[in-house]
Amino acid sequence: MDVEEFRKRGYETIDRIFSSRVEPGYLKLLLPEKAPEEPEPWEAIQSDIETKIIPGITHWQSPNFFALYPANSSFPSILAGMYSDMFNVIGFNWSSSPACTELEPIVLDWMAKLIGLDPKFYSNGKGGGVIQASASEATLVTLLAARHRILEEYKEKGANEEELRSISTRLVAYGSDQTHSCLKKAAKITNTLDRALPTDHNFSLRGVTVKQAIEKDIANGLIPFYVVGTIGTTDSAAIDKLTEIANAIKGTKIWLHVDAAYAGAALVCPEFKYLLKGINRADSFDFNMHKWLLANFECSCLWINNRYHLINALSVSQDILKNPASDSGLVIDYKDWEIPPKGLREHIRKMVRLTRQFHNKLLRYPDLFVISTPPKFALVNFHIKPNNIFTKSSNELTEIICDRLNESGKVLLSLTKMRGQSIIRFSPGSPLTTEKHVDSAFELLLNVAEGVIAYSLKN
Amino acid sequence: MDVEEFRKRGYETIDRIFSSRVEPGYLKLLLPEKAPEEPEPWEAIQSDIETKIIPGITHWQSPNFFALYPANSSFPSILAGMYSDMFNVIGFNWSSSPACTELEPIVLDWMAKLIGLDPKFYSNGKGGGVIQASASEATLVTLLAARHRILEEYKEKGANEEELRSISTRLVAYGSDQTHSCLKKAAKITNTLDRALPTDHNFSLRGVTVKQAIEKDIANGLIPFYVVGTIGTTDSAAIDKLTEIANAIKGTKIWLHVDAAYAGAALVCPEFKYLLKGINRADSFDFNMHKWLLANFECSCLWINNRYHLINALSVSQDILKNPASDSGLVIDYKDWEIPPKGLREHIRKMVRLTRQFHNKLLRYPDLFVISTPPKFALVNFHIKPNNIFTKSSNELTEIICDRLNESGKVLLSLTKMRGQSIIRFSPGSPLTTEKHVDSAFELLLNVAEGVIAYSLKN
Repeated sequence: MDVEEFRKRGYETIDRIFSSRVEPGYLKLLLPEKAPEEPEPWEAIQSDIETKIIPGITHWQSPNFFALYPANSSFPSILAGMYSDMFNVIGFNWSSSPACTELEPIVLDWMAKLIGLDPKFYSNGKGGGVIQASASEATLVTLLAARHRILEEYKEKGANEEELRSISTRLVAYGSDQTHSCLKKAAKITNTLDRALPTDHNFSLRGVTVKQAIEKDIANGLIPFYVVGTIGTTDSAAIDKLTEIANAIKGTKIWLHVDAAYAGAALVCPEFKYLLKGINRADSFDFNMHKWLLANFECSCLWINNRYHLINALSVSQDILKNPASDSGLVIDYKDWEIPPKGLREHIRKMVRLTRQFHNKLLRYPDLFVISTPPKFALVNFHIKPNNIFTKSSNELTEIICDRLNESGKVLLSLTKMRGQSIIRFSPGSPLTTEKHVDSAFELLLNVAEGVIAYSLKN
Repeated sequence: MDVEEFRKRGYETIDRIFSSRVEPGYLKLLLPEKAPEEPEPWEAIQSDIETKIIPGITHWQSPNFFALYPANSSFPSILAGMYSDMFNVIGFNWSSSPACTELEPIVLDWMAKLIGLDPKFYSNGKGGGVIQASASEATLVTLLAARHRILEEYKEKGANEEELRSISTRLVAYGSDQTHSCLKKAAKITNTLDRALPTDHNFSLRGVTVKQAIEKDIANGLIPFYVVGTIGTTDSAAIDKLTEIANAIKGTKIWLHVDAAYAGAALVCPEFKYLLKGINRADSFDFNMHKWLLANFECSCLWINNRYHLINALSVSQDILKNPASDSGLVIDYKDWEIPPKGLREHIRKMVRLTRQFHNKLLRYPDLFVISTPPKFALVNFHIKPNNIFTKSSNELTEIICDRLNESGKVLLSLTKMRGQSIIRFSPGSPLTTEKHVDSAFELLLNVAEGVIAYSLKN
């Protein structure tokens, strides 16, 4: 492909903006068993994309996508992606790409100021920010940093390498029964223990629960070293009581990490800044630009108050990478951050407003819908009200209705289970979503629910 | 930014193709301390990119980039990146994006057939391929799979969770003193032991070395569980004796992983397929499309002969992700693979030829240059011949000359150290590199070397 053809095909690609109804295994039937030996014209590839790939795509960009959490692209993010792909720099140290390495801490400082993080997280002191691929990776690397910090103490007290490996197996990490599964995975990878502590009626982790768990583990000869508090849990956007947790571990050597993968984006708005009080007591904080702030996947922003432990937990070096300018151990990546704060705030507020709109509609039908967990950020959960005139349980009806909605191809919502109750999650996030889409989604829900229930009435 | 402006700016971006002479900290002086509060016009951002970012970029795409290893983009890869950014699908399970999830095993089967991997690595049996972000990640996840496999045996024999955690700290992973530092990092993360075994005069790891190390560790109560063999080490593209290593661990439960991050690309050519004999005895094999095969970062292809252990080593699940179609545990990503095998072969052969051209020129000056390690794939290493008429050592001269070459801004090469000897690595990889660039690079080397040496003559 020469420059002229690339230009032509690039224009064509720019001109396309798109909108899965396929069965598992559909693609294998459409593609050859081997890669074509001879080059194919771009038209053939373009046609493959349109006829074979696009029909199999779940359109996260659709204004009717209310499932899981938002993962929206934006035009500036796509342009930045084009630059990034053209430069294709590998930024593992300063000399491999100065601009890439220097831009990252600068924009992470910008973001830290924008969302109101404590200056201990700025890069001009001991702290700093770094982009990770996901909030799960952020949990893994902060757990490694926490392990490094506590093992260093044992090392200073004279523990040798073998003893340190053994001590490491008695380390305990804490989260709640609502914490993302990445904590379990991080503990599994690092061969440490993890606890999923019970939450209160709001699905929030409380300080007293953490305190009791720590005391019990210490009594059993184990070593608490890491707690993750969540702002905006996956199922219900619940908020852990960070100040309580920080008080519970005060004076200990336990690392507090805050996972705000989805909800952290809301901190660009002053009305959500009350959350900062707890966040700013943490050792590390992470949220995803690629969830609710229109950056392309993958752009998870992690800040730590002391980068020494993160760098030393991960650092190993090879001669070939040594060079005079190299002293940064933070993982570096190059992404677009060029959407201004004002636009970001408007985007967040719009989604909160649309969620409230959907919530208000649910409230109008109290005999039909139960708000499972109250609206938080841009998420509201609901289920079908149990009623003994129905032949089916609330769980069965809720599940059937969610399946029907998604099968319609008109909207996409998520189904999950909390404490035995099946619930439907409604989470708008596409910049294309308007009041009209929310109205239509609710109309569809009402029609489907009434239809399903009509078939489930006793006699 | 609306559709029309995106179209215009997209065209502009398509029309630009570019070619660091900055000091550490340059960017902080050029950018504001806070993100701009109000939106900026794209012209201003475009201008920032040109005047502030591009001057700080190390141009990995340049035809005069002979440093480290290639990391080249290509036009089809950029177009694919645009589609990928526009779709912005998150492919963590089938329902989140059927096309993405299904395309990956299909193209990895294509690649497995193209490079000649044993059918045990195809996805229609117990094996299969998966894209990782890097060869380092591949080493980590295969080490986790190996740990899962060996711990499962202890579990079957009745070990409880606490015993398994303790057994895990006695596990030993083996590589050579030339193995990429990711092995050390993986061992550090997982709290297992690692050994960097000595290599022979060709920098190759031998079977007998592995066998002796294993026996010694077993005698000391440790548990060997993982060996990584490298095809194309970072410093000298050395090739470990895989068949010997496979024989050394035959009948044991030790996992053999092959890291061919850079050199695996060469397997698209029949003349390199002799390497397959050893590779096909491994449990897992990884190479990077984003190094020498023109795919954008990040696209590391990993194949395993039994995906069960990989999936179970990493699997943790949450209710919200459960759905009827979901049973694939492989990590899924969406990338472009649309460059046909024929073009790939031509690209590999061209770089091998250009390396030989440079090597032949070095040979013409036996009093000046020593070939440190013979050319392998598209890498040749050399250093300045020690001579007692010089006031400086071979190491000093080699280092100064490499610095001068890179400071010229005309070429980029890497400096590394092998067994105390400073060496310069010459590794072409850009599709834009021609015989002319290699000639010019050698002329420059000769001028710089003669200049530096003229100042280092005694008297």
